[in-house]
Amino acid sequence: MTKTRRIFSLLLRLLALGATLSATIVMVTSHDSAEVLNLTFKAKYSNESAFKYFVIAEAVASGYSVIALFVSSKTLLWRLLVILDAVITMLLTSSVSAALAVAHVGKKGNSHAGWLPICGQVPKFCNQVTGALIAGLIAAIIYFLLFIYSVHTVLTPLFTV
Amino acid sequence: MTKTRRIFSLLLRLLALGATLSATIVMVTSHDSAEVLNLTFKAKYSNESAFKYFVIAEAVASGYSVIALFVSSKTLLWRLLVILDAVITMLLTSSVSAALAVAHVGKKGNSHAGWLPICGQVPKFCNQVTGALIAGLIAAIIYFLLFIYSVHTVLTPLFTV
Repeated sequence: MTKTRRIFSLLLRLLALGATLSATIVMVTSHDSAEVLNLTFKAKYSNESAFKYFVIAEAVASGYSVIALFVSSKTLLWRLLVILDAVITMLLTSSVSAALAVAHVGKKGNSHAGWLPICGQVPKFCNQVTGALIAGLIAAIIYFLLFIYSVHTVLTPLFTV
Repeated sequence: MTKTRRIFSLLLRLLALGATLSATIVMVTSHDSAEVLNLTFKAKYSNESAFKYFVIAEAVASGYSVIALFVSSKTLLWRLLVILDAVITMLLTSSVSAALAVAHVGKKGNSHAGWLPICGQVPKFCNQVTGALIAGLIAAIIYFLLFIYSVHTVLTPLFTV
């Protein structure tokens, strides 16, 4: 039973690693350019703080995922993973939310503030950002499941007492 | 000992309630208008999706804070608060991040995307949004402390076994 649990959580961690790595790579490689009134207009992730934060958060989560794969379930450290998983879930949630909010402005614009949508000019950039955001969202959901799973594993003995 | 713990967590919950209520009220009442080229330009929170999400999240957290105050520490429900606290922490983190990302664009603009900063035109609106974001950030931090505290309370017996 414990072995099945361990394998299930390892599988989730591998999936999360795949998602965070994809999100990082897809966001970093996103760029496109357009010519507007003879001026070349270049779009890349590093032009916007929220996207830079997204890349840093996904990279940190990737590193953590690799380390967490090798933590033995017999050590006390493994129980600390409950808190660390929660912290990483929050980091991912926060970075995806920030990037999503700015991407939404990029796609729809905000007429009240006079901000025009840019996706019409740089569709390739927008599509890659969308892909990265979907991967980031999947990673956040997997981490939330991992967290709920860890809490459940830790709390179950208490509930049955 | 258990009583001190209960009082401490009640105190944190009251503080969190104060912070989420202030964040909701300050954000909802934020508005300002400016005249640019004879056109009146009105700024209010409902013009931007991220700010609407922020208000909804802070209101939900306020409601949850009130209910959590009355959950008895003797019931099993109290242990479920660990997970619910984590969910509310994530909701607050996510909404503050999204609103902060858009507010950052509003303050600094993004020259690459051609988005001009608007805080020069509507300083009153910007100040109120900043206030609401600070209150939201404080609420998120208090909820994170509550979550760590609950996890600690639940995990301690396991660590000492």
